[in-house]
Amino acid sequence: MRPSPRERLLEAAATLFHRYGVGIGVEALCKAAGVSKRSMYQLFESKNELLAACLKERASLYLATLLPATDDGRSSRERILHVFAQVESQAGAPEFYGCPYLAAQIELKDQRHPASRVAHQVKANLTAFLRAEAEQGGASDPDLLARQLSLVFDGAGTRAGIGADTLTGLVAPTVTTLLDAAGVR
Amino acid sequence: MRPSPRERLLEAAATLFHRYGVGIGVEALCKAAGVSKRSMYQLFESKNELLAACLKERASLYLATLLPATDDGRSSRERILHVFAQVESQAGAPEFYGCPYLAAQIELKDQRHPASRVAHQVKANLTAFLRAEAEQGGASDPDLLARQLSLVFDGAGTRAGIGADTLTGLVAPTVTTLLDAAGVR
Repeated sequence: MRPSPRERLLEAAATLFHRYGVGIGVEALCKAAGVSKRSMYQLFESKNELLAACLKERASLYLATLLPATDDGRSSRERILHVFAQVESQAGAPEFYGCPYLAAQIELKDQRHPASRVAHQVKANLTAFLRAEAEQGGASDPDLLARQLSLVFDGAGTRAGIGADTLTGLVAPTVTTLLDAAGVR
Repeated sequence: MRPSPRERLLEAAATLFHRYGVGIGVEALCKAAGVSKRSMYQLFESKNELLAACLKERASLYLATLLPATDDGRSSRERILHVFAQVESQAGAPEFYGCPYLAAQIELKDQRHPASRVAHQVKANLTAFLRAEAEQGGASDPDLLARQLSLVFDGAGTRAGIGADTLTGLVAPTVTTLLDAAGVR
């Protein structure tokens, strides 16, 4: 069964916003989705609302590609390293432009934009995961470690996204150094 | 004396590209500069060329706000920490949207774009500075340390730019941990 117009729009939005940025036009989005502009505006108030909905509906999928399974029996240290192994692996794929939630916020430059709010929350959820693992792993300062790991996450994603670094041999040693310094064994 | 049309266009470009992103229109740029579109196209082949020229001509100024003076007598460790103190200080300013050279590359999503090439080179110059100081400071692996510090630089700038972190109490401890691990005393 062919996906619904709404699904096709969300799918096209995910692909085109990531590839071309938030400036991509409504016509290109509708064309890629095979949906008329009239239909699009019946489903979404505006392109901004489509972007926000797209980021929101794909948040669980996005976090699932990064986070380890709940209670997988591994240590907090291993679970944190799992996230960064995913980052390194994703960065190696062709057409990688960095974290879509970070990119949307950088491009929109408006923290009150509905899509920025969604992106901000998704990234806060990732930091919350890292903080919980840092605490569980006995970090001397779980808040600091969670901020440091979030910084590495975003630094790694953007540098790979712009082709400034391959991340190979970079992310794991960096995270390991920070985990060691925080006492997470 | 009023700056030349070329100077006014470069100044308007620096402000508006940083504030609104690379999607800002030619009309807005010309209006802010007080220059006709006809004059703009006599001076720059395209908006892309204006963006590339703006990034290129402001590169020295940009690096000068970050880097310590040559041979200021301080240790490599102190000179590296100087860069990150500047990052933290800049991030505290209102209307901070992160490193303009990083933002341009993220927004353009095309490494062959003339402005991306300029931005790539400016960021490579910063990494080269960090690598030289890492080597001078006796880092066990100067390449790795320079990549780590570049990652922290971009991670810190973007996270402050999107309002995800204030950087207070984050950047200095992170850089210190990496310097210590690399044996840069």
